[in-house]
Amino acid sequence: MERNNNSLQSICYSSGSLQLLDQRKLPLEVIYLDIKDATDGCSSWLTNLSQQCDSIGHYLAGPAQLLRSAIREMVVRGAPAIAIAAALSLAVEVSKLQAFDGTPDNAASFLIEKLEYLVTSRPTAVNLSDAATKLKEVISNAAATAKEAQSVFRAYIEAAKIMLEDDVASNKAIGSYGARVLQHLLKDSKRLSILTHCNTGSLATAGYGTALGVIRAVHTEGFLERAYCTETRPFNQGSRLTAFELVHDKIPATLVADSAAAALMKEGRVDAVIVGADRVAANGDTANKIGTYSLALCAMYHNIPFYVAAPLTSIDLSLSSGKEIVIEERSPMELTHTRGGLGEQVAASGISVWNPAFDVTPANLITGIVTEKGVITKTGTDAFEIRHFIQNLANRLV
Amino acid sequence: MERNNNSLQSICYSSGSLQLLDQRKLPLEVIYLDIKDATDGCSSWLTNLSQQCDSIGHYLAGPAQLLRSAIREMVVRGAPAIAIAAALSLAVEVSKLQAFDGTPDNAASFLIEKLEYLVTSRPTAVNLSDAATKLKEVISNAAATAKEAQSVFRAYIEAAKIMLEDDVASNKAIGSYGARVLQHLLKDSKRLSILTHCNTGSLATAGYGTALGVIRAVHTEGFLERAYCTETRPFNQGSRLTAFELVHDKIPATLVADSAAAALMKEGRVDAVIVGADRVAANGDTANKIGTYSLALCAMYHNIPFYVAAPLTSIDLSLSSGKEIVIEERSPMELTHTRGGLGEQVAASGISVWNPAFDVTPANLITGIVTEKGVITKTGTDAFEIRHFIQNLANRLV
Repeated sequence: MERNNNSLQSICYSSGSLQLLDQRKLPLEVIYLDIKDATDGCSSWLTNLSQQCDSIGHYLAGPAQLLRSAIREMVVRGAPAIAIAAALSLAVEVSKLQAFDGTPDNAASFLIEKLEYLVTSRPTAVNLSDAATKLKEVISNAAATAKEAQSVFRAYIEAAKIMLEDDVASNKAIGSYGARVLQHLLKDSKRLSILTHCNTGSLATAGYGTALGVIRAVHTEGFLERAYCTETRPFNQGSRLTAFELVHDKIPATLVADSAAAALMKEGRVDAVIVGADRVAANGDTANKIGTYSLALCAMYHNIPFYVAAPLTSIDLSLSSGKEIVIEERSPMELTHTRGGLGEQVAASGISVWNPAFDVTPANLITGIVTEKGVITKTGTDAFEIRHFIQNLANRLV
Repeated sequence: MERNNNSLQSICYSSGSLQLLDQRKLPLEVIYLDIKDATDGCSSWLTNLSQQCDSIGHYLAGPAQLLRSAIREMVVRGAPAIAIAAALSLAVEVSKLQAFDGTPDNAASFLIEKLEYLVTSRPTAVNLSDAATKLKEVISNAAATAKEAQSVFRAYIEAAKIMLEDDVASNKAIGSYGARVLQHLLKDSKRLSILTHCNTGSLATAGYGTALGVIRAVHTEGFLERAYCTETRPFNQGSRLTAFELVHDKIPATLVADSAAAALMKEGRVDAVIVGADRVAANGDTANKIGTYSLALCAMYHNIPFYVAAPLTSIDLSLSSGKEIVIEERSPMELTHTRGGLGEQVAASGISVWNPAFDVTPANLITGIVTEKGVITKTGTDAFEIRHFIQNLANRLV
C-alpha cells in the first residue's frame, strides 16, 4: 500500500488493492478500510451491508458493492473523491476476476452495468456520473478493437488509475498556481495568513485538495504564517475535517467560528481568503458551501483578496450567471441537533429552520479563480471571461 | 405567583417569593425553581449546594446563598437578569426574617454584607455590581433616618422590587421606541421581517428583552412578517434560547446558521437587523456577541438598516470609541466540543482555537441606537453624539 505520510491521503490505491480512510470516525479515530473482494462473506465495517447481502445475495458483495455502501454511509465524501473511489473499486473487482468467460463485448457490458450501479449510490454527484461517462467511452473503444475480454479489463484498470493520478496532478497544479499568485501579496511581511472555509483537502478529493491544496503549497514553499479554518456550520466540515488535515500535516492552523471571521479580518490577521467551489458559472459567479458569500463580503470590506480554487471541471459554461443556480436546502435537523442531525437536540422544539446547502458569491467579490491551467483574472471589475480563458487554452493546444 | 402567560418570564417575583426559570434545562424542559428559605435543609436542585452547605453550614443556605449557586450554575444568565434576581433573592430572605435583633445600622450591615457576598458570584458582571452599589445607597439612606431595623428591610425590599419593575418598564420602552422607528421602513409591504442575533429576550433580562423586546413589540403591533434568529455560535444562545422564546410566544420565526444570514439578506428576506449590546462607546461603536460585526457588514452591503437596542446603562461614556474595548476570549472547548464545551468532542484534537466572546461593530455600520428614552441617530455618517443626546434628556428633566 502506497501511503504518503507527509500529506493526509483518504484514498490509497495500488494494483488490486484499495483502502479508504473512514471519514465517519474522524476526527476521533483514523481507520483505513479495505475495499476488497468479500469472498469470506460480508465485511463487518459497513453497518447495513449484511442486510443487503442477505437479501441481494453474495454476488453483489464485491468491491463495487462495498464501495456503494461506503459512499452511502459517508465513509468517503466529497464529489471528486467519490468519483475516483468508485472507479477504483471496480478496478479492484476486475483485477480479482480469475477467469471471465466471455467476449470483449461481454466484458464491456459487465463493466458498464457495474458503473451504472455505482452511479446510483449518489445520483446527484455530477463528478461521479461524469467519471462514469468517460470510463464508458474508454470501455467501448477498447471493446471495439480488443481480441479478448482481458484487454477490455486492462484498459479499464489503466483508465481508472489515470483518473486518480490526474486528479492529484490537477490539485497539485492548482496548488502551484495558487501559491504563485498569493506570493505577489508578500510585501514587508515574509509570510501570509490564509483563511479557508469548509473542507477542500485530501478528504474531499483524490488527494492534496483544491483550496486547501493551495494552503499546502504555500506552506511547502515556506511562506505560510498560519492557516485559519472556519468551523463551517452546520455540519462542521471545517472543525472536523479541515482542522484534522491541518493538524495531521503539521501546518500552523487556528479554528474560528464562522461568525468570528470578520473580527479576525478587522484585526489584520488575514492576508487572503481561498475557498473551493461546487460550481462556477461562465461569468465567475461561484456556488460554494453556505457561508462563503458572507466571507467574501467581509473580505471585500477589509480589502482582502478573495480567491476561488477549483478544477476546470467545476466550471459550468451552460450557466451564464449565478442567478441560474438553484439553492438546495438540507435537513433542519443539521441545526436543531448535533452531529449533522444524528446527535442530541440543541434547538427549541417547534422552531422552523432555513438550511441552505450553499450560497452564490458574485464574481465582483472574487479576485481570481485558481484552476489547474492557471489563474483566471478579471478584465473588468464585475465578471470573469472564463470562455475566453478556456478558448485560449484550446488554441495553445492546437 | 404572578406568571404572565403571554410573554416568557424567567424571573417570577411576588412579595416573599421568587421563582427562576432553570436555563440549564432549556430548550428541552421548562422548570421553575423556588428560591426560598431552605429551613428544611439544602435544596436538591443545585448540584453543588449540598457540599457547600456541609462545609459552610446551615446559615448560608438562605435565598441569597441559593441565588449565588443559581448564578454560578447558570440557572440564570444575562447581565440584567443576574443583577435583578440577586437583588430579589435578598428581598425574599429579608421578608422571611421573623425577628431581627438589632439596630437599623445592624440591619444595614447585614444587607450590605449579603449584597457583597452576592456580587462575588459573578465578579465581572457590571450590572450586578452597579445594582449592588445603588441598593447600598438606599440601605445607607434608610439606616440614617430609620428608628427600627424593619424600616431598613422594608426600604430594601421596595427598592429591589422597583429595580425589577424599572427593568421591565425600560425594556418595554425600548420595544416601543424600536417598533416606532421600524414602522418607518414599511413601504409597499404591510409587514417586516427582522433578523436578530444571540439572546436579548426575557431570558437575559428581567422580562421582555431589548432587541428581542423590539421584535415582540413589532409583533404585538401587527406588522411583523417573521423573526429570523441566528444560531449564535459557539454557545448557541440563538437556537437554544431565542428560538425557545419565539416559539413560546408564538411569534413566526425561523432559525438560520450565522453564516447563512448573508444569503438570506441577498434573497431580500430581511428588512431590518436588530441586536443587543454588551457595551456602547461614546461615539456609538458597539461591543456585542461575536458575529454581530459580520452581520452589520452584510446588512450594509444589502442596504438593510442595522439597529442596536440597549438601555442607557449599557452606554459607557468613558470610552471614546470601540478601540478602547478589549476583546475577551473564551474557552476553546466551546468550539471543539458540543454544549459549550460540556458535550462530546467534534473538532480535531490538537487544533488551536481563537474564540473571542464579542466583537466591536463601528458606529458607521449602525443606523440607530434604540434606548428606553428614544432612538439615538447620527448627525454625520460616522459617529453618534450620545453625550449630546444624554445632555438633552437631562435638560428636559430640569
